[in-house]
Amino acid sequence: MRQYEMFEITLRGPELKESWARADVRAVFTHEGKTVTVPGFYAGEGVYKVRFLPMEPGEYVWHVSGAVIGEGREECVPAVTHGPVRASGRGFAYADGTPFQPFGTTIYALVHQSRELIDRTFETLAAAPFNKVRLCVFPKDYDFNKNEPEHYAFEKNADGAWDTSRPCFAFWDAFEEGLRRLNSLGIQADLVLFHPYDRWGFNGMGHEKDLTYLDYLTRRLAAFPNIWWSLANEYELTARTVEEWEDIEAFVSDHDPYGHPLSCHNIFNVWDANRPRITHASIQTKDLLRLPVWQERFAGKPVLIDECAYEGDIEPFWGSITGQEMVRRFWRCVSQGAYCTHGETFYSDDDVLWWAKGGVIHGESPARIGFCRKIIESLPGQLEGEPTFLPRLLKAIRSSEEEREAALESLPKHFHVFAQALAKSPDADSYASSEIGWYGHIGTDVYLRFHDTRPITRDTLELPEDRTYTIRVLDIWNMTDETVAKGASGRYTVKLPGRENMAVLAVAEG
Amino acid sequence: MRQYEMFEITLRGPELKESWARADVRAVFTHEGKTVTVPGFYAGEGVYKVRFLPMEPGEYVWHVSGAVIGEGREECVPAVTHGPVRASGRGFAYADGTPFQPFGTTIYALVHQSRELIDRTFETLAAAPFNKVRLCVFPKDYDFNKNEPEHYAFEKNADGAWDTSRPCFAFWDAFEEGLRRLNSLGIQADLVLFHPYDRWGFNGMGHEKDLTYLDYLTRRLAAFPNIWWSLANEYELTARTVEEWEDIEAFVSDHDPYGHPLSCHNIFNVWDANRPRITHASIQTKDLLRLPVWQERFAGKPVLIDECAYEGDIEPFWGSITGQEMVRRFWRCVSQGAYCTHGETFYSDDDVLWWAKGGVIHGESPARIGFCRKIIESLPGQLEGEPTFLPRLLKAIRSSEEEREAALESLPKHFHVFAQALAKSPDADSYASSEIGWYGHIGTDVYLRFHDTRPITRDTLELPEDRTYTIRVLDIWNMTDETVAKGASGRYTVKLPGRENMAVLAVAEG
Repeated sequence: MRQYEMFEITLRGPELKESWARADVRAVFTHEGKTVTVPGFYAGEGVYKVRFLPMEPGEYVWHVSGAVIGEGREECVPAVTHGPVRASGRGFAYADGTPFQPFGTTIYALVHQSRELIDRTFETLAAAPFNKVRLCVFPKDYDFNKNEPEHYAFEKNADGAWDTSRPCFAFWDAFEEGLRRLNSLGIQADLVLFHPYDRWGFNGMGHEKDLTYLDYLTRRLAAFPNIWWSLANEYELTARTVEEWEDIEAFVSDHDPYGHPLSCHNIFNVWDANRPRITHASIQTKDLLRLPVWQERFAGKPVLIDECAYEGDIEPFWGSITGQEMVRRFWRCVSQGAYCTHGETFYSDDDVLWWAKGGVIHGESPARIGFCRKIIESLPGQLEGEPTFLPRLLKAIRSSEEEREAALESLPKHFHVFAQALAKSPDADSYASSEIGWYGHIGTDVYLRFHDTRPITRDTLELPEDRTYTIRVLDIWNMTDETVAKGASGRYTVKLPGRENMAVLAVAEG
Repeated sequence: MRQYEMFEITLRGPELKESWARADVRAVFTHEGKTVTVPGFYAGEGVYKVRFLPMEPGEYVWHVSGAVIGEGREECVPAVTHGPVRASGRGFAYADGTPFQPFGTTIYALVHQSRELIDRTFETLAAAPFNKVRLCVFPKDYDFNKNEPEHYAFEKNADGAWDTSRPCFAFWDAFEEGLRRLNSLGIQADLVLFHPYDRWGFNGMGHEKDLTYLDYLTRRLAAFPNIWWSLANEYELTARTVEEWEDIEAFVSDHDPYGHPLSCHNIFNVWDANRPRITHASIQTKDLLRLPVWQERFAGKPVLIDECAYEGDIEPFWGSITGQEMVRRFWRCVSQGAYCTHGETFYSDDDVLWWAKGGVIHGESPARIGFCRKIIESLPGQLEGEPTFLPRLLKAIRSSEEEREAALESLPKHFHVFAQALAKSPDADSYASSEIGWYGHIGTDVYLRFHDTRPITRDTLELPEDRTYTIRVLDIWNMTDETVAKGASGRYTVKLPGRENMAVLAVAEG
């Protein structure tokens, strides 16, 4: 047994004829006087397993009861890994406290491909910059997603309906192999538990079958250290009511002893990340100008833009942004202390699109996402969005009279009229948000100014007077990182080359 | 006297000591039994003038009365030009019916520069693709706009206040020379009558003085064939109430016998172009996704995006879009049957920025705007926006039950759920508008599909089955226009090179 790694107990017992999914088996783990009970699962042919993820080193005593009985004692050795990731403030951290900043990609039907293709995908992932993958449990039926998988999650009844009480062990074994391989690459598995793109009947089984499926799934998978729960991809499009979603949210949360990240991904209506069990917002939107809105609404929780369109050349809107645009979306997000997710949709002769099936990466963005990740991970903390002039002004003139007066005081006279007109405008929020700058800071330690598509040739920073800064100019596309000044303080103007994709980074010296 | 050209009567009379601006002089023009009365103006040193823009050829008899008296008879010869531009449906046309499609630029303080600089500006304009210029009557005080003009519109009182009743003739003569030079280049002068960027006191003279100024201005300028009235630049920021603006709108309209285009330009709140005297919407916005909203709100009137940021490299947001982005904004507008306006703001050693003062053009967009203009002017009519799938679906599911059923019928099953969820979403409009395609058509004669920044490699057109089309692929940045198919009908897939800035144009054959 090792801290942060899945520990598995295997026992033999009676072969089950029915209710495989909810087998009567559990283990009680006792460690330093504290006990945890975790349910086990039936693995077929009279084999019962219980999985456990020890969070602390030391001695554990366990007792299995139910259809099988057993007990044991394990010395849990200290971790050699960082442990499972949890939401932590506006960001994430591994269990040992190491910050985790998600730089994810999307391979919805990764596990429903041939072994050969899966192998190729993992080769690609091993060399790619991604530390999170969104993937579905159920197979996908959609454009470019027409292949039949080898296994399904359940056996079928005589009438052809899925029998969720009888899981298909071959499926789960193969699925878990995928999760293990992701884990070995240090990649979080953002598991999509339900989705609407279905021709097999997994969408629309009915609420009871949904819960039986989740019961088995959580018994098997909750002890994986690298699991995240994404209740749905595009929850509104599946055959479930909001009440059923809320019930599913509670069920998954209650059946996860480890507090893995838990979210629900929308198509139109962002799921309320303020709900207590939800750990972070997982948002589909192309409108990154609204990032500050989501961050304010879900203050204190991480915001992930888990779908913002994909780098590709296919006809639909969602699959045809340029590599540059994909990379800029990452920088827009990270500059605000939010996160973005990659996907790739290029036509291919063999109909293998990364976003659907994996394979190899054709796009230009991943290398640059790696550059972004390297820069962001090198900073001493998580960035926080720095409102630019207009959003700041709008906020000030809408707050107390004192703040309003102070804001006006600091402005040239013709801006007083501007501010007063802005305050009265019904379009004020839209106007102010169109002037958003992708600026962020970490206290007074770091200032990042991402200039996006703006080809400016000068950038004037207003740094604190009482600290000195090293200023770097980043070309986020050509991946250059040039130090242009040391010891800078106060108002400081940086020269820029007058092209898109530039950022200025000021890091405090000592 | 020539049709569509300004005719001027000059008479000598008593020197005026006061009320120059509202001199007692008018002319009655009689033509084919119809009479028109137009006020004249005082031009200084006992000179009175009356200006008239004859719209039809033939014999005119005129009588001047008031402080000076005179009469005459003129044979008005037929036009050699197209006449003044008027709003016509969603577009514009010259008086002779020739369509006019505005491709404008912005030189706010054009006339307040040195003669040498003005000459240089006109040399530039002569070689540029622009057929409209936004320019201010009053000088401008703003960043990059600090120079003192040679003349002001009025003389001053002993107390230093502007005496609007005593126009500065040297100013108006110089100003009119600018208008004439624009006219000789076939360029419409979109005259900004008021604006907020002022250090001289022209903003805040009070309503009575505003009207005196407008009285003199309309007497002098209304007979220029190439005049448009832009009541303001950013009306909300000037020192006037909405009621005063409405009064100004009525005053200008009532004092213009010729129906020149009349608009009012906003900073936040688009002026209501449905007001009867307003001929077209003149909008400042960077959010072109809302174009269909403005077009629907002001149905039947032209929509001009008269300010959408400028090509340049300066620090402010409004002055730092790339040339490519400037050109794309033109194509987005024209694809929807709307229009866009250019401006340019590059730092320059002599502090001459095109948008402020004119001079020479440094940017890359104007040549491409010329390419756009050539293509658009070659089409047999004005494009109309073609809603893409989502806006169309949203409209259908919000309309009659029949239309909703028909819309759902035409969709694959999983889209039924999608449509129903969309219909219920509070974010539906925002979602649908984020999926806008820049597609337009002229009946079934022309289909334009501007793909903007989307690097697609295939584009599938659904052309009418009963006509044949020539299909062209346009690279709107590299200015190539390649015919890729003739005789195309029905569903037709075009190959595209997989880069930004491409458009597909299908024109019916015969």
